[in-house]
Amino acid sequence: MIALFTDFTLNGPYVGQMHAVLGQLAPGVCLVDLMHDAPRCDPRAAACLLARIVAPLPDDALVLAVVDPGVGDPGRRAVVLEADGRRFVGPDNGLLESVARTAKLSRWWQITWQPPQLSDSFHGRDLFAPVAAQLATGTPLEQLAHMIPAGHFADWPTELAEVIYVDAFGNLITGLDAGDIDVSARLVIAGNTVAGARTFSAVPEGELFWYHNSMGLVEIAQNRGNAALSLGCGIGTPVEL
Amino acid sequence: MIALFTDFTLNGPYVGQMHAVLGQLAPGVCLVDLMHDAPRCDPRAAACLLARIVAPLPDDALVLAVVDPGVGDPGRRAVVLEADGRRFVGPDNGLLESVARTAKLSRWWQITWQPPQLSDSFHGRDLFAPVAAQLATGTPLEQLAHMIPAGHFADWPTELAEVIYVDAFGNLITGLDAGDIDVSARLVIAGNTVAGARTFSAVPEGELFWYHNSMGLVEIAQNRGNAALSLGCGIGTPVEL
Amino acid sequence: MIALFTDFTLNGPYVGQMHAVLGQLAPGVCLVDLMHDAPRCDPRAAACLLARIVAPLPDDALVLAVVDPGVGDPGRRAVVLEADGRRFVGPDNGLLESVARTAKLSRWWQITWQPPQLSDSFHGRDLFAPVAAQLATGTPLEQLAHMIPAGHFADWPTELAEVIYVDAFGNLITGLDAGDIDVSARLVIAGNTVAGARTFSAVPEGELFWYHNSMGLVEIAQNRGNAALSLGCGIGTPVEL
Repeated sequence: MIALFTDFTLNGPYVGQMHAVLGQLAPGVCLVDLMHDAPRCDPRAAACLLARIVAPLPDDALVLAVVDPGVGDPGRRAVVLEADGRRFVGPDNGLLESVARTAKLSRWWQITWQPPQLSDSFHGRDLFAPVAAQLATGTPLEQLAHMIPAGHFADWPTELAEVIYVDAFGNLITGLDAGDIDVSARLVIAGNTVAGARTFSAVPEGELFWYHNSMGLVEIAQNRGNAALSLGCGIGTPVEL
Repeated sequence: MIALFTDFTLNGPYVGQMHAVLGQLAPGVCLVDLMHDAPRCDPRAAACLLARIVAPLPDDALVLAVVDPGVGDPGRRAVVLEADGRRFVGPDNGLLESVARTAKLSRWWQITWQPPQLSDSFHGRDLFAPVAAQLATGTPLEQLAHMIPAGHFADWPTELAEVIYVDAFGNLITGLDAGDIDVSARLVIAGNTVAGARTFSAVPEGELFWYHNSMGLVEIAQNRGNAALSLGCGIGTPVEL
Repeated sequence: MIALFTDFTLNGPYVGQMHAVLGQLAPGVCLVDLMHDAPRCDPRAAACLLARIVAPLPDDALVLAVVDPGVGDPGRRAVVLEADGRRFVGPDNGLLESVARTAKLSRWWQITWQPPQLSDSFHGRDLFAPVAAQLATGTPLEQLAHMIPAGHFADWPTELAEVIYVDAFGNLITGLDAGDIDVSARLVIAGNTVAGARTFSAVPEGELFWYHNSMGLVEIAQNRGNAALSLGCGIGTPVEL
């Protein structure tokens, strides 16, 4: 299985061309579109989401993750992260940082394989997809990359006390691990104090609340409402416990 | 084949996580995304659409249908509907009612299988998808569910004389079966009387008309226009014959 | 592999029903959604995109392309284009014209096969998809169609000096082949003169520029901005070299 996580959106020719390449180079391999509206040009927020969204994948799934860090940036390297046996192909811009941190064992590789043709603006199609396809069909990693030291994002917080994604319903997903936070805790966001609840139906219509979402993160929602609109919040809005 | 019908939208991590679970538990089974923008939290309208959209599926397709009836609602049961041999996995909130009614033979089962981990807010991923995957790969239904009496939505009309979906072009799909309605009939919607036509090109540009759509429902459209905007209508707007 | 290119959008029941038919009639064949937001009812612009987007497909891929030319138009025929061995199934409305022109060898066929049931408004599902599925599973083309002379769009320009698509980020894809245009050339669009650059990061933030995009077309973008909004442009806006 190759699972895709990008900020390309589902509009336009981008995801389709990725699938065309993967379908040609890795025929018969199952493709899963995890998400194509990851926070755009925001690898820090996207990293938090990525680390969570991969949970239901099989252990041998290969993850192809591309969130743009500035096309043509000379500091960008193409890497493979091995995290507890699972492989992630993507840019060296911090996107894979949360996955690496939450893994017991992680190793980094720099991709050395070069495609016959590399466009300036679509490394996802020309470089990352062919590498993912080769790995998924059995090419040894050593033939495509060489091992390198861990990434350079040691100053990034492991949790993000801010909104990292707003879903289609206006629910505000934060980068806070919900695991240790009791439902009696109160959050402050955009000047509002928000109490916790276990489910939507546990609060009156129109009420804001926070809950442990299905990815294990703190999420702020409004029963039968749109929390993002009601609070005027978006990706990056700080949250305080 | 497992066919998906939900109100999750294609944005965000929701459909991707469903595919991840299905790809892991039912490898090699064809997944079809029938629709992921079913009328949200509106199982009555969604039920009409579902009964129609499944027509081109093979007889042995399994349908996984989730439209939210209020997460955490204690009255919600997870069910399997067998309708003329085809199986539908979904919530017991009326979503499967139209399918059951239009079937010659229908049987209802309550799902008794429980996942090792069940989140509060994503039963689609944690409960419905694994059940669908197990059924699609040959687990006998008896091991996952026990038979129950028919559903509780006897007061729902079989046809809905209202708009049940607005497509991306502003066409208004109603819940009225077009089969028996002659093209000379006139509809009234939002104070406008609308004549019938067989095709878009049969009416002048800008003209509103109704026609037998490709799912066998009455649909109101505007040639080269957006009927929803022109009429100020949406899901739930009543239609009179 | 069957690759789909349509103007249906990913909303609603349309693409899902296409997949249902293809999954039933061509089980096991890989389906690739190249793009479902091709320029709507604009086969001239869509034709330029189609000719480019198919590049990464394997040689034996079959392309199913539907962009609406006016439902019910009596002049519309269903055709198959063979272009350098690759097959395209679609309407005879110019959509396949650019592919035919850029091929060394092209042959046209009119589809004679008729489905048992043909709706007035969804030939994609009822006619084009079953033909594509039959071809992909080995039915000889001669059983479905007969050869005809080339298409009727000889007056269409091979390149389009105008915007043919606006992506989700506001980048303006034109129908101009970038191959022969030096990066020092200047474009004029909506009264603005735009210089060329190789990558986004090569220009200051907020600056408009044009570049060779990953499909080999001239594209106008704004670094960290939305060129479509800044320029007030859309599909059809003329571009001058």
